[in-house]
Amino acid sequence: MAKKKILVLHGPNLNLLGKRQPEIYGRLTLQQINAQIRALAKELGLNVEVRQSNDEGELVTWIQQAPKEFGAIILNPAAYTHTSIALKDAISAVEIPTIEVHISNIHKREEFRKHSFVAEAAVGQITGFGAQSYLLGLRAAAQQL
Amino acid sequence: MAKKKILVLHGPNLNLLGKRQPEIYGRLTLQQINAQIRALAKELGLNVEVRQSNDEGELVTWIQQAPKEFGAIILNPAAYTHTSIALKDAISAVEIPTIEVHISNIHKREEFRKHSFVAEAAVGQITGFGAQSYLLGLRAAAQQL
Amino acid sequence: MAKKKILVLHGPNLNLLGKRQPEIYGRLTLQQINAQIRALAKELGLNVEVRQSNDEGELVTWIQQAPKEFGAIILNPAAYTHTSIALKDAISAVEIPTIEVHISNIHKREEFRKHSFVAEAAVGQITGFGAQSYLLGLRAAAQQL
Amino acid sequence: MAKKKILVLHGPNLNLLGKRQPEIYGRLTLQQINAQIRALAKELGLNVEVRQSNDEGELVTWIQQAPKEFGAIILNPAAYTHTSIALKDAISAVEIPTIEVHISNIHKREEFRKHSFVAEAAVGQITGFGAQSYLLGLRAAAQQL
Amino acid sequence: MAKKKILVLHGPNLNLLGKRQPEIYGRLTLQQINAQIRALAKELGLNVEVRQSNDEGELVTWIQQAPKEFGAIILNPAAYTHTSIALKDAISAVEIPTIEVHISNIHKREEFRKHSFVAEAAVGQITGFGAQSYLLGLRAAAQQL
Amino acid sequence: MAKKKILVLHGPNLNLLGKRQPEIYGRLTLQQINAQIRALAKELGLNVEVRQSNDEGELVTWIQQAPKEFGAIILNPAAYTHTSIALKDAISAVEIPTIEVHISNIHKREEFRKHSFVAEAAVGQITGFGAQSYLLGLRAAAQQL
Amino acid sequence: MAKKKILVLHGPNLNLLGKRQPEIYGRLTLQQINAQIRALAKELGLNVEVRQSNDEGELVTWIQQAPKEFGAIILNPAAYTHTSIALKDAISAVEIPTIEVHISNIHKREEFRKHSFVAEAAVGQITGFGAQSYLLGLRAAAQQL
Amino acid sequence: MAKKKILVLHGPNLNLLGKRQPEIYGRLTLQQINAQIRALAKELGLNVEVRQSNDEGELVTWIQQAPKEFGAIILNPAAYTHTSIALKDAISAVEIPTIEVHISNIHKREEFRKHSFVAEAAVGQITGFGAQSYLLGLRAAAQQL
Amino acid sequence: MAKKKILVLHGPNLNLLGKRQPEIYGRLTLQQINAQIRALAKELGLNVEVRQSNDEGELVTWIQQAPKEFGAIILNPAAYTHTSIALKDAISAVEIPTIEVHISNIHKREEFRKHSFVAEAAVGQITGFGAQSYLLGLRAAAQQL
Amino acid sequence: MAKKKILVLHGPNLNLLGKRQPEIYGRLTLQQINAQIRALAKELGLNVEVRQSNDEGELVTWIQQAPKEFGAIILNPAAYTHTSIALKDAISAVEIPTIEVHISNIHKREEFRKHSFVAEAAVGQITGFGAQSYLLGLRAAAQQL
Amino acid sequence: MAKKKILVLHGPNLNLLGKRQPEIYGRLTLQQINAQIRALAKELGLNVEVRQSNDEGELVTWIQQAPKEFGAIILNPAAYTHTSIALKDAISAVEIPTIEVHISNIHKREEFRKHSFVAEAAVGQITGFGAQSYLLGLRAAAQQL
Amino acid sequence: MAKKKILVLHGPNLNLLGKRQPEIYGRLTLQQINAQIRALAKELGLNVEVRQSNDEGELVTWIQQAPKEFGAIILNPAAYTHTSIALKDAISAVEIPTIEVHISNIHKREEFRKHSFVAEAAVGQITGFGAQSYLLGLRAAAQQL
Repeated sequence: MAKKKILVLHGPNLNLLGKRQPEIYGRLTLQQINAQIRALAKELGLNVEVRQSNDEGELVTWIQQAPKEFGAIILNPAAYTHTSIALKDAISAVEIPTIEVHISNIHKREEFRKHSFVAEAAVGQITGFGAQSYLLGLRAAAQQL
Repeated sequence: MAKKKILVLHGPNLNLLGKRQPEIYGRLTLQQINAQIRALAKELGLNVEVRQSNDEGELVTWIQQAPKEFGAIILNPAAYTHTSIALKDAISAVEIPTIEVHISNIHKREEFRKHSFVAEAAVGQITGFGAQSYLLGLRAAAQQL
Repeated sequence: MAKKKILVLHGPNLNLLGKRQPEIYGRLTLQQINAQIRALAKELGLNVEVRQSNDEGELVTWIQQAPKEFGAIILNPAAYTHTSIALKDAISAVEIPTIEVHISNIHKREEFRKHSFVAEAAVGQITGFGAQSYLLGLRAAAQQL
Repeated sequence: MAKKKILVLHGPNLNLLGKRQPEIYGRLTLQQINAQIRALAKELGLNVEVRQSNDEGELVTWIQQAPKEFGAIILNPAAYTHTSIALKDAISAVEIPTIEVHISNIHKREEFRKHSFVAEAAVGQITGFGAQSYLLGLRAAAQQL
Repeated sequence: MAKKKILVLHGPNLNLLGKRQPEIYGRLTLQQINAQIRALAKELGLNVEVRQSNDEGELVTWIQQAPKEFGAIILNPAAYTHTSIALKDAISAVEIPTIEVHISNIHKREEFRKHSFVAEAAVGQITGFGAQSYLLGLRAAAQQL
Repeated sequence: MAKKKILVLHGPNLNLLGKRQPEIYGRLTLQQINAQIRALAKELGLNVEVRQSNDEGELVTWIQQAPKEFGAIILNPAAYTHTSIALKDAISAVEIPTIEVHISNIHKREEFRKHSFVAEAAVGQITGFGAQSYLLGLRAAAQQL
Repeated sequence: MAKKKILVLHGPNLNLLGKRQPEIYGRLTLQQINAQIRALAKELGLNVEVRQSNDEGELVTWIQQAPKEFGAIILNPAAYTHTSIALKDAISAVEIPTIEVHISNIHKREEFRKHSFVAEAAVGQITGFGAQSYLLGLRAAAQQL
Repeated sequence: MAKKKILVLHGPNLNLLGKRQPEIYGRLTLQQINAQIRALAKELGLNVEVRQSNDEGELVTWIQQAPKEFGAIILNPAAYTHTSIALKDAISAVEIPTIEVHISNIHKREEFRKHSFVAEAAVGQITGFGAQSYLLGLRAAAQQL
Repeated sequence: MAKKKILVLHGPNLNLLGKRQPEIYGRLTLQQINAQIRALAKELGLNVEVRQSNDEGELVTWIQQAPKEFGAIILNPAAYTHTSIALKDAISAVEIPTIEVHISNIHKREEFRKHSFVAEAAVGQITGFGAQSYLLGLRAAAQQL
Repeated sequence: MAKKKILVLHGPNLNLLGKRQPEIYGRLTLQQINAQIRALAKELGLNVEVRQSNDEGELVTWIQQAPKEFGAIILNPAAYTHTSIALKDAISAVEIPTIEVHISNIHKREEFRKHSFVAEAAVGQITGFGAQSYLLGLRAAAQQL
Repeated sequence: MAKKKILVLHGPNLNLLGKRQPEIYGRLTLQQINAQIRALAKELGLNVEVRQSNDEGELVTWIQQAPKEFGAIILNPAAYTHTSIALKDAISAVEIPTIEVHISNIHKREEFRKHSFVAEAAVGQITGFGAQSYLLGLRAAAQQL
Repeated sequence: MAKKKILVLHGPNLNLLGKRQPEIYGRLTLQQINAQIRALAKELGLNVEVRQSNDEGELVTWIQQAPKEFGAIILNPAAYTHTSIALKDAISAVEIPTIEVHISNIHKREEFRKHSFVAEAAVGQITGFGAQSYLLGLRAAAQQL
């Protein structure tokens, strides 16, 4: 069924993964993480589509359009986690569930990274397990379908 | 006179009106609201142009370019109301008046929705009257011309 | 119908309009504003009654008694906007709608003027359009009837 | 290997699951959740031991003693999440990883439930997926071993 | 050497310089400031490229791509100074130095303009010297190369 | 003895009890509550006098004059609980004890209803027991005499 | 009926009553207060059981187990009033009503004693009447049965 | 000249002076203080009129009407010092100077007594000199005439 | 009697009076103010000694030594008003009274100028009457002797 | 004399000393520290008894019972320093002096470790001297006897 | 060895000890405390030099120069504890250890006395033991040498 | 012309540069930095005079006296940046421009170092470029002359 499709969205600066501050974000590139996501999706019998954007408005639009094609969203909002009410509102506005994931443990970093506007609208949040956060998010999404 | 033209800007997620959380935002679609705006504009002898964007930067640019063609702006900044200093600065930078409108009463919702950066630069704010907020804003704009 | 009657309440110090800080509140006197309100009411086929008080308790009592005679209230709570929970409670307690208006844009002034207890109970708030705020409020009230 | 053993700790009031506020915590009893945890552990080839306590000091002591017998801890600290520096310090003091899980999405509830002392010491946090939060936590723990 | 090239980025609303609130930002247009930057660059034997954007995401992308072609970035983040964690993260993620400049003295303005997310990642900040802030920034960048 | 007389004061909007938000304040009218108070007073061999006012100044004056005629005051300050330092000062100024009562549990409502200026001067506070709060207050007052 | 039984819980340090800071807590010992509670219970035809604990976890467990045997709880949470979310959650989790009592007026003491987590879950709060607070609480409990 | 007349306003609870908390406010009654004020006025060749009210609205009205008859106002706003924006607005609205006086030193008392809305509109503030505060205020007023 | 001597202390930057920001501090020089102080002292039969220092430590030492020679201190602590706990402690430590004066009305300026550490130890504070603040302070000091 | 006996209490997680984060707490085990305490006690002619608990309630009970046997308490409340009002109340309730000690300098660590509820009731606080903090505390206790 | 010399610095107002608020600071004069310090130093085989200053800059300079002659500093920063970043920076800048001492228990006094800038740079803090605080500090310093 | 002379002021602890925390402040001594300043001044045809003080009052006095001899001030206020309103007032009081410089990037350090009282009065601020901050400040000052 078409609804078995899951949209994975990477927020700003995640295209630099592997190169950017590896002591915080690990040494896997976004391509390697995407490969892991696709492998697990296959194992779980799910379709995934993966996109990345540095642009808050583009992420909002992707979330708005998701219900036509997807049954759930996995979102790593990165820096927009803490500042974007627009993302929160988009998630609240669509009927499919959104699962928030973070590579690093946002609760161990600067004070301003502890609060998430996105978490107030998402089903739940998975934070701190490196690339595995996405894989756990995928299993959670599978359960939501 | 060309200056009788008014620019109506809808911010992020307002394209989902009617579908999104109708208990908060009502059941009118953006198209229906735009029709009401156009009808009243006609009655008042005004031209209106209506645009929507999920993108903060695009809204900023539209405001910057407005004075060439428009005599006033009606802006529903939606989620950017509370986070966008860039919108505030754009409104301060152009010489034509901006009127801020909100469909729901932002003072009855979450704490973070009570503060508006836009209101600190706009002529005034109209909040809580559903689609009528736009129509009241249009009358206020007519007065400003 | 009796319910076409609207109560307009001016809060503390508004009896000084025209004389008091005209750079903030404009040069129209309360009498001139009331004349504009009455003229528009006539045009809209509505009855209005206008009162002013410097006394929080008297304003509370007027709101409590309004439903017997009026179908809606337009309230400029002035200084009590920011300090009166009693006004908020009175508005919540009566079944007719209250519309909050302000002559100046309260969001452009001192920090303590940005928060409104009244707005948390009113249908909506119109702020910053000078005497026109009352006229827009009257149109909003007409819609509520 | 002994180290394949995982300790699952349920904090205060979780013994009431299924009966307590099911609109927040769901209708599964703690026994049913434990059965799900044991089933998945078996599938993953892991041993689990499950305990519950209403007592902050007892939870601290169990964490301190865990490294002798266990390779990882899954902890739902419940109410102590937000108030217990002692739990945080115990987690920091032992060398095995702790994974924090929550049944409800703590970011959608009262303000005081958003901050977690435990998260500042744990590997990561999984919140909002109902009983599945424990299962995702078990997979994360398996990865840590 | 290619690395002698410096990227100068102007943030939102800076394209309006000279017209926008000249009592705060001065009467020089962006074109005139750019001419001064280019003249000094020439004097210092440096290449500069100058861009302006109202879009947070576009600025993030430009910073991400800068290391391929440039040895340093001079950034006036304007309104995004105070709200963009995404810009901060982009600056932290690239290996070349970023120098933050402001035309007006941000410490003499509204409270919310005193805090800079960008400054927490930049080499340093130069604020308050009008167009000269860019020229001082260029000298600082030259030193960094 | 004259001192066996107790003054019961109802603050603003309590005259609307039974009609006003019954899901918060219950369905008993003020008349019905007063009847219950008088019945218990009779049973306890006490005289009571009951008054209601929407006016902060009138409540202050009644408290000031109470010691001439009354041995204790039972006060439900309603909205003035949270804003009136004048009531607090009046209570501190008179030598007879004041007992603060609330129908609803003020600690379960909006943040601003949790703090009581009155409680800082009263003997004690009884909150959340509906009309019974007054009856418990009467017993407490009897004890104070 | 078994449900006529009421559980009275004294929190930490209340076993020291009479000896501990009598200027704040009075000169009655816990034994004397318990005797007063039992006497009034007898008068009201109620059974009471009285327990004291210094241990947050033990108090939580007693509340959890209360519904099997008791129809209402009277709780003086003492120091845990202000710090224990676990007690609040236990009270919310059980179906019988809890009434919060305090000997001293917590609103007249240190700032940190003004906020009560327990009050957010209890039926109501009685504070400041010395040993009589328990007796008033017993009457309130009788009403709840 | 009529303008040599000065209005002295005593706020809420000051009618109790001498009886109310003499360790804070001294043992002089309001009558004795008024006699001192009148004696000094005579010495300075000034007329004074003295009034007291517990009512915020009445104080506001007296200030509004003062310019017709008086050249300056001496105001002890007592409890309304800290809560009344209406008094502040009235003082700003009239053209004659207001001088704020306090018997006790408000900076040595509770935190909430340190902030004065009135002081933000008055010429100046004199606090802490007992009855002499009024006499110093009278001299300051004489200077303003 | 030697004790009729009063010490007048001017804090940092007051030596610039007349030249420094005359729109805030007036056009009188410190010499002219001192002459007014000396003239009034003579009239009141008092001896005064006047000193100025930009140095917090020197002001502290002068206050410490004052009781040997003076019966009261008039202190304009200027910028140290808001930051010096050392001045506060010195005032508390000596047995003679200190009277705090300010030329401008500190409550009408920046937020950080509203709090005074000195006022928490002084007899009282006189603020906003220009040079007359010192003269009123002198009369207050005369009363204290 | 029996009163020469001193009770040394170690709070939660201190049983892990030497193993737990030695960069913060040093490499001495609790046994080694206890040996140092006993050696110095012997030198000073004092008896000491040493206990450790992870349980807030147990620590409270030990403090309550101490006066029967001990003349002073040395308490390292560890994590409970910052969260336990119950410990503070217990210390205030007993007549023997309590001395608070900390191995690490709590003022150099996280913000939440700077505030101590215990210090508000203890005689004094010694923080930052490693195991020596206990020895200095023992000397302070000796002085108190 | 020269390094056995210890510098004891007394901050502002400590020269008044014995006379200043003895209920807080005790009845010993600074001379008597210095004698106790010297006596213990002798007993421990240490040289001490004692200085007092009311001047922040002088204290900073003494700390800067200390390493040439001294092996450790004992500092009672008094009022500068809470306001002087300059003292903190000086302590961080020199290589010898500084030990902070206070006569009174700063945690039992005004809120603003609880925070110490000095403690963030010192080895540790000893507060509340009267003159003995210095003696304990001396023993701590001896340990540091 | 005499006005070509520039005063360079180094605040507290800057005399220790090169020795003090070189990981923050670099390895250049104050003498070496002064040499660089003098070299650039010579190149720009300017006279400079350089002074250092640990004393807030002395820095204030130097700024007050500067206009007689100097045309601009370059000030590194070091620790006084964040605490000295006296320095801010001195800068506001003199007619010549002051330029604030910092060696380290104050926005990357402790929270309390982010706010600058000096910046609210200075022309602008240059922070984070090591010794080069002074050289950039000198160029900015040259421009101001």
